Amino acid sequence: MSRFLNVIPVADAVAEVIRISPSPVTETIPLESSVGRILAAEVTADSDIPGFDRSVVDGFAVRAADTAGAGDAIPALLHCTGRIAMGRQDTTGIFAPGTCTYIPTGGILPEGADAVVMVEYAEEAGDMVLVKRPVSYGENVLLYDEDFKKGECVFSSGRRISAQDAGVLAACGCAAVTVAKKPVVGIISTGNELIPVTGVPGPGQVRDANASMLAAYLTEYGCTPRIYGIIPDERQAFEAVLARAVPECDVVLLSGGSSKDDRDMTAAVIATMGEVLVHGIAIAPGKPTIIGRISDKPVFGLPGHPASAFVVLIAIVRPLIDRMLGVPHPIQRTEKATLSINIPSQRGRDEFVRVTLKNGTATPLFGKSGLLNTLVRSNGLIRIPAGAEGLEQGSTVEVILW
Amino acid sequence: MSRFLNVIPVADAVAEVIRISPSPVTETIPLESSVGRILAAEVTADSDIPGFDRSVVDGFAVRAADTAGAGDAIPALLHCTGRIAMGRQDTTGIFAPGTCTYIPTGGILPEGADAVVMVEYAEEAGDMVLVKRPVSYGENVLLYDEDFKKGECVFSSGRRISAQDAGVLAACGCAAVTVAKKPVVGIISTGNELIPVTGVPGPGQVRDANASMLAAYLTEYGCTPRIYGIIPDERQAFEAVLARAVPECDVVLLSGGSSKDDRDMTAAVIATMGEVLVHGIAIAPGKPTIIGRISDKPVFGLPGHPASAFVVLIAIVRPLIDRMLGVPHPIQRTEKATLSINIPSQRGRDEFVRVTLKNGTATPLFGKSGLLNTLVRSNGLIRIPAGAEGLEQGSTVEVILW
Repeated sequence: MSRFLNVIPVADAVAEVIRISPSPVTETIPLESSVGRILAAEVTADSDIPGFDRSVVDGFAVRAADTAGAGDAIPALLHCTGRIAMGRQDTTGIFAPGTCTYIPTGGILPEGADAVVMVEYAEEAGDMVLVKRPVSYGENVLLYDEDFKKGECVFSSGRRISAQDAGVLAACGCAAVTVAKKPVVGIISTGNELIPVTGVPGPGQVRDANASMLAAYLTEYGCTPRIYGIIPDERQAFEAVLARAVPECDVVLLSGGSSKDDRDMTAAVIATMGEVLVHGIAIAPGKPTIIGRISDKPVFGLPGHPASAFVVLIAIVRPLIDRMLGVPHPIQRTEKATLSINIPSQRGRDEFVRVTLKNGTATPLFGKSGLLNTLVRSNGLIRIPAGAEGLEQGSTVEVILW
Repeated sequence: MSRFLNVIPVADAVAEVIRISPSPVTETIPLESSVGRILAAEVTADSDIPGFDRSVVDGFAVRAADTAGAGDAIPALLHCTGRIAMGRQDTTGIFAPGTCTYIPTGGILPEGADAVVMVEYAEEAGDMVLVKRPVSYGENVLLYDEDFKKGECVFSSGRRISAQDAGVLAACGCAAVTVAKKPVVGIISTGNELIPVTGVPGPGQVRDANASMLAAYLTEYGCTPRIYGIIPDERQAFEAVLARAVPECDVVLLSGGSSKDDRDMTAAVIATMGEVLVHGIAIAPGKPTIIGRISDKPVFGLPGHPASAFVVLIAIVRPLIDRMLGVPHPIQRTEKATLSINIPSQRGRDEFVRVTLKNGTATPLFGKSGLLNTLVRSNGLIRIPAGAEGLEQGSTVEVILW
């Protein structure tokens, strides 16, 4: 195999990833476990909400016209006919002009009443109520179907269910929701230098950091990671684990081996079992990335260093996950910031630089790319596009937050 | 009971909440399930990282001095003595001047070598390698303990574990991590007007939206919600469910009943079984909130409407959860934005207004406070502090994002 890679632009790599993306799969789950999941179907209101004219305050149901001109000096004087109980229809007949009824928040407005005076602006005096402020038609009342009309679209497909959404889904009667199934992503660690987290590194050995990092990211992003452990740099071992992982997963990530031998082995095995589509992307860090496919399942060879693997995960793998989840935009948090200093960059490749973010200012963390401590000290990444020679001090950048 | 509440400022309510906050409890969990959890103890490096001088590129290990002045026209000519295998110490003896060795990314720098020339700048010619660029001391090498020194603090207590952190924890050998235990938060829905999500609302009835919303928020915020269902407005039912929930939970939220009767019942039962500390907060929406304590467990009476309950959850309950989790700052996402129009407000209470956020501009969503659809249409909340008469168009606001 050649010592040099046939590097393609990031946009072409992403297009390739989208081309081989498996179709989204859906499942129906209980509402109570749906927060953070992605709606896979439109949700409509199953009934009119509210299904009745509803008081939104504690007060007195009135005819608005009866309160016209009321004030502290000359209050409107209304005859109080009683109290409305929660969750019950008032059956005392038509609401007569000049009368009022105590109504709790959430109570059904009696027929004939058209507004509610808050208790704060009313004073009880025996059977009478003194109203000290006028109310207008519909004031302090949520009218029938004012919130949602039956059949109206409440949520579109592709929306990530927030806590508030869960409340609104409950209001709409969605005890079960149809969401995108969590993609199962296999994680295979490769490289003779790797030892498990529980091991004590001997000479030349490092602990497998990538598997934990990738699994954690995928968990937060709505996938189910499946860790296959560390595989030695032997062709048979590679083939055996891939033969097991490919049928069990929707996507497979090979990661951890940082040497060229390891990458060549990865590419050779993918080529034998399926096809290598991309080997080398114009991205820094992360150039030696492999994109392939075995039995119609996308298989990625990620670079060995965690910081590099993370950049490829965000820039190349995430668009695949987004597609499988059916989200129109990445779920990743970003924040606009001002760049504190110039960052030179090499044309012809997308470069990702770790930055710290403070009070709206992004400061690049220079230093050796192989350091883990810059992952801990930084808050996120900024991208310098392939066409730029760098970014200027004072320019606005978008920080992809950790 | 009085028809009016004894309202106290938000800051006083929060101080009361913090005063009665249970102490944080910790637990030790496997690294693979730790993402999003809060570190409850400092993490130090268990060994020097890396434990050897490590090449960060594929290339040739050299003495930097041998490459001085090298260029395309006059390359440095070095004798290649072989290849270094991954994860193995080179035992071929002292690295002689004028020689080089192929070294993979991650390989151990041989004794005597002090830099690595990238393959891109080297050309093999039989036993010789032509080096076309000079390297300086330590270039392309991660030096012994350069990342973390043994015993060095890697993470402080109170940090939320990100995906990157999970990778670094793995590198530090933390197969198990000590984190804050998830607070168990009981959710009791009250109110005769409420029906379960699976029900079909009859006259005056609404589905219980709060339990789903609160549970979803608490799940995302790192708590374990425990739903107790809907309790009718009867004193015995209240007492029975609280007698069950208080021992089973760390915190109990009573929510859903929106009427004054319901709130009075809540306060009366809390007062009988424990103590009511606050009844009424200068916050809009959310004024009729109750803070109490039963058997040293904080118990909250939240307002009935989801939008109001949500504001109280963020402004009043969250500081308690933050304390129990041991986080120095709220985990909630916020974003700075410019206000599109003036918002008038009433002095003397903290007011929370729903806004939509687009291209850095926050636009308030006016309309009746009881609407659910503004929860769906908005992106977050802004706070107008009690001392302000409003916020001016063009001012910078912090949006608490959904």
